[in-house]
Amino acid sequence: MNMKQHKEARSKKQILEATIVLLETSSYSSLTVEAVASQAGVGKATIYRWWNSKAQLVLDAFLMTVESEFEFDHSKPIKDNFKLQLATLTRILGSRIGKSTLTIVTENEDIAKDFYSSYIIIKRNNAKQALQAAIDKGEIHSNITMDIVLDLLYGSVYFQILIYKKLPDEAYIDDLLNHVMQGITISN
Amino acid sequence: MNMKQHKEARSKKQILEATIVLLETSSYSSLTVEAVASQAGVGKATIYRWWNSKAQLVLDAFLMTVESEFEFDHSKPIKDNFKLQLATLTRILGSRIGKSTLTIVTENEDIAKDFYSSYIIIKRNNAKQALQAAIDKGEIHSNITMDIVLDLLYGSVYFQILIYKKLPDEAYIDDLLNHVMQGITISN
Repeated sequence: MNMKQHKEARSKKQILEATIVLLETSSYSSLTVEAVASQAGVGKATIYRWWNSKAQLVLDAFLMTVESEFEFDHSKPIKDNFKLQLATLTRILGSRIGKSTLTIVTENEDIAKDFYSSYIIIKRNNAKQALQAAIDKGEIHSNITMDIVLDLLYGSVYFQILIYKKLPDEAYIDDLLNHVMQGITISN
Repeated sequence: MNMKQHKEARSKKQILEATIVLLETSSYSSLTVEAVASQAGVGKATIYRWWNSKAQLVLDAFLMTVESEFEFDHSKPIKDNFKLQLATLTRILGSRIGKSTLTIVTENEDIAKDFYSSYIIIKRNNAKQALQAAIDKGEIHSNITMDIVLDLLYGSVYFQILIYKKLPDEAYIDDLLNHVMQGITISN
């Protein structure tokens, strides 16, 4: 990176961090690009140079927060891996930036596409590699449909949050995992 | 019912039907109470006498359309019952009124509560009775957590629609059912 690129990257990071900070105290609908610009110490035009809309800005702020998310450890049992993944997902979706992201994903088809291509598909590929490793180790059956297994696990968590407006707790995640693993585990 | 009540019931039904008709050609956000009033041939004040908001009106219109929904047949295998239920749910949630209802449920906590108490909990109790009948017949294990089994089935369908923006097809529903049944069915 040259100096200009460095400055740009720093400026972008400041804007995304300002977005996250402001969403801690204001709802998505009351968040304004003006407020983000003021919080980040940049001009409004700077924000619009990089993001077309408030929704795009919030999605990028979400993606920044999940960058350092927990990865799968193929040496551990698949169930332990999923337990950690589901707990992390629940924490993220329950945060202010997570809730705002879910709102825009459900109501905006373009954002949903970006959410899919820059978040879900990447997480899903990691999860599929972990499932394949578990199959190779003889932990779970090879005739599963991976996308279905992942829908069962993640779909239930999204459902609880979006429709029931409840954040799944550890007991729920354990029970969910037990039911899903029951159908796919190779018993000794 | 006396004549006044009859007239009121007819008028309410006309308003709900007008809401459904208008949602066929306009989005939820562009729907107005004025347009519903005009379509139903009533005054705006009549609508506001019975409904506090556009969202409440749309939720009631949704509830009217699902009233005649398919019920469980306890003499049939539980899997066949769920297959029909999930196909019906997918059709309803994929309709214009269904999509509008999902939008307001995800973004409005009060509507979500009403959706839960006047729709989900009723459907869920029917499903639990069917699961209990299947347990009594020795079809499925008695140690299941019914709410988890129902989250697995329904949660996956809501997830596909809300996050993936896809309407599950018959192949998806079959695969989903196979995975869930695998974990709970008593094998002979």
